[in-house]
Amino acid sequence: MLIINLGIGLKVAIIGGGAAGMSAASRIKRLHADWDVMVFERAPYVSHAPCGVPFYVSGMVGRIEDLCAYDISHFKEDRGIDVHIRAKVVEVGDGFLRVEEGGKERRYEWDKLLFATGARAAPLNVKCEELDGVLCVHYIENGERVRRLAEKSESVVVIGSGYIGVEMAEALSRLGKKVVILEKEKHPLPDFDYEVSSIIQQKLQQIVDVRFSENVVAIEGKDRVERIITDRDEYRCDMVIMAVGSIPNVELAKELGVEIGNTGAIKTTKRLETSIENVYAAGDCAETTNIVTGTEDWIPLAVPANKMGYVAGVNISGYEMEFPGALRSQLTSFYDIEIGKTGLSEKEAIKFGFDTISVTISAKTSTKYLPNGNITLKVIADKDGKLLGVQAAGKKVAMRIYAASTLLYKKSTISDMFFADLPYYPPENRVWDPLVVAARTLFRKLGIP
Amino acid sequence: MLIINLGIGLKVAIIGGGAAGMSAASRIKRLHADWDVMVFERAPYVSHAPCGVPFYVSGMVGRIEDLCAYDISHFKEDRGIDVHIRAKVVEVGDGFLRVEEGGKERRYEWDKLLFATGARAAPLNVKCEELDGVLCVHYIENGERVRRLAEKSESVVVIGSGYIGVEMAEALSRLGKKVVILEKEKHPLPDFDYEVSSIIQQKLQQIVDVRFSENVVAIEGKDRVERIITDRDEYRCDMVIMAVGSIPNVELAKELGVEIGNTGAIKTTKRLETSIENVYAAGDCAETTNIVTGTEDWIPLAVPANKMGYVAGVNISGYEMEFPGALRSQLTSFYDIEIGKTGLSEKEAIKFGFDTISVTISAKTSTKYLPNGNITLKVIADKDGKLLGVQAAGKKVAMRIYAASTLLYKKSTISDMFFADLPYYPPENRVWDPLVVAARTLFRKLGIP
Repeated sequence: MLIINLGIGLKVAIIGGGAAGMSAASRIKRLHADWDVMVFERAPYVSHAPCGVPFYVSGMVGRIEDLCAYDISHFKEDRGIDVHIRAKVVEVGDGFLRVEEGGKERRYEWDKLLFATGARAAPLNVKCEELDGVLCVHYIENGERVRRLAEKSESVVVIGSGYIGVEMAEALSRLGKKVVILEKEKHPLPDFDYEVSSIIQQKLQQIVDVRFSENVVAIEGKDRVERIITDRDEYRCDMVIMAVGSIPNVELAKELGVEIGNTGAIKTTKRLETSIENVYAAGDCAETTNIVTGTEDWIPLAVPANKMGYVAGVNISGYEMEFPGALRSQLTSFYDIEIGKTGLSEKEAIKFGFDTISVTISAKTSTKYLPNGNITLKVIADKDGKLLGVQAAGKKVAMRIYAASTLLYKKSTISDMFFADLPYYPPENRVWDPLVVAARTLFRKLGIP
Repeated sequence: MLIINLGIGLKVAIIGGGAAGMSAASRIKRLHADWDVMVFERAPYVSHAPCGVPFYVSGMVGRIEDLCAYDISHFKEDRGIDVHIRAKVVEVGDGFLRVEEGGKERRYEWDKLLFATGARAAPLNVKCEELDGVLCVHYIENGERVRRLAEKSESVVVIGSGYIGVEMAEALSRLGKKVVILEKEKHPLPDFDYEVSSIIQQKLQQIVDVRFSENVVAIEGKDRVERIITDRDEYRCDMVIMAVGSIPNVELAKELGVEIGNTGAIKTTKRLETSIENVYAAGDCAETTNIVTGTEDWIPLAVPANKMGYVAGVNISGYEMEFPGALRSQLTSFYDIEIGKTGLSEKEAIKFGFDTISVTISAKTSTKYLPNGNITLKVIADKDGKLLGVQAAGKKVAMRIYAASTLLYKKSTISDMFFADLPYYPPENRVWDPLVVAARTLFRKLGIP
């Protein structure tokens, strides 16, 4: 732990009050109570967690404010952070910012700057996607609009069946809406291999009208959305949820001359420095390392965003800490089917150039003589037995993805997956956990007796 | 993978048909279909899993046979193993065995021998512990006796509050019995630190009559047990469950001259060889390595027993595979409180000579805005940040112990626990998982900013 520069009363500007921005701000104030830490956030909330929007839309969560980790007053009063909400940064210059807030434009100075500008919903690039009734859920403010509009709607089209599309389809179908999902790929959750996503596909097909290999060509309507036209059909609807992915918000960083990486996000070092001295980036706007491939990647997820913010905060404060990267670990569900993934799918691994072996097993989640569920688990490794990725769908998925994430983080082999001493308790798992059975099956493919 | 000796038609004798014995037998027949693999088991079952006994006693499991992983016919017919049940080995000599079975004594020859003789309930060494109505649950046959006797009993005393004592107390109280637990230590689950076992203690005290720091001095009764006398009180009862630990069955191994380790179990190499050539040991009768301390240990649990059997089978078959050791990972519950542990408790770590730091946190298991539970988590590390052990009690314990076991297996640090990229999904966990919060708290104690 090398102390580089402790400074006195430095001014830190943070653009974006989401997970990364608020984690960084909190860390800096903890390490330097005397520093002036300013956060500029466009929305009326900070520490907003859009992962909760589907639960707000479905009515499981009562108030939109509940989706924020903390109140603004907590950050201001308890942590001493100078939080500006409804504050739009309109220019970033060397050592200064210009901000529109409260109807006025103001100028602030900074010694150190953090881009925590997040990501936004990717556009479809079709006609009329700005029509009323066409919404995304990247911002929690939109949660309120979706919920209000859903009350008046009968038919909803969800475009995209990544995890946001799947979660929104559940939320809306739980409200009794007629839901159509349009997916341009052949299967839902395109990040997954089909051996595992097929479990979700079956359940989706039972509950919503899901169309694969279908491309949206236009959105139509007069004052508001009325129908979606695809290359195969058309769908009347009162509301559209756009869930076709996201793109990093890097415009302000570009303006300052910060280098953008090949992924389209801001290039960073392990200490989350950008190409400009005293300028950092963290969270969904920034690149990181994919721990499995060892190369730069863009992984816009809540867990790495929070930790990148934390690490950026430590480094901005003049200490040294490295962010090791992420695994794109994810977990979601559709009704009673959980699904999770960590590391690479087999198709991603092959695309990256790995010579893969893999196994997919279906197993009971608990000991056979107790109430039970099914889990389908796929494990991918290279020909030296190095673990590349794990996916699972069914019941009790989280615990397996927890163990698998840890194994991947520690660059483990199939043998490690076999021998890691996971505990056994009849109601919770099996003495030969599905992870261990999968490892044992891969032993054969590696010539291990 | 070095092939040492593939032999032809070798004879392998395995003493004990539990987890280790049947895993080894299955592996050997898979690698050498032509070898003669004999298993000698005293009980009328093989691949019996005593972990299930509490679920049989409580009535959750209907038939005692359901507690066996497979039927005997499966091992005989599908796997080609020569299984002898109700077969008591009375002498082990160099290259031969004498066995009592079907009322006769027979002699068998072996080229390779595996001790998989398991463990038995430890005695209390008090008067009259052989009285009728005094039972242990180390053998599944006893499950039937306990269930039958429980039907006629009103009051049961459980001696010991390790995980078997706690599980049996739940099973019997679910049957409406008046249950007293007598524990000589100050708290239940003495393997745990009190910060975590206190959560179980509270629940135990709500449901059963639990007495701590009380030593049994005698068991009394005429034809059958009538009362227990302790150093502080006496308890009338119709039935007693002995759950004061276990001891390895090493008598036959000693007879052959096999070296016994300091733990009292059979000394083994990583390949599960004993001190005598062609003689192996696996499962609850054998020593292994404690992965955290790196020293020999005796860890009689189902998961290592199965894997030791597997590894012994590979080595007996003439291939090479090492068993890396175990972490004493365990998981159990008492009513709705789950409890788990992997690695060392703080008191164990201190006893072993580690200079420890630790933290205990109480947290919600899921995101605050969704239905939630509480978890209490303790993490122990050394002063260099090397992880030594994790314990948890409350809800959603298994997934945290899964991740923690994997971290310990890979000899991880607190920093690894912080950065391992565990996935987030609001109903399942928190964006800052309790494991990550604990790691972050330990950073302070290590001087990490």
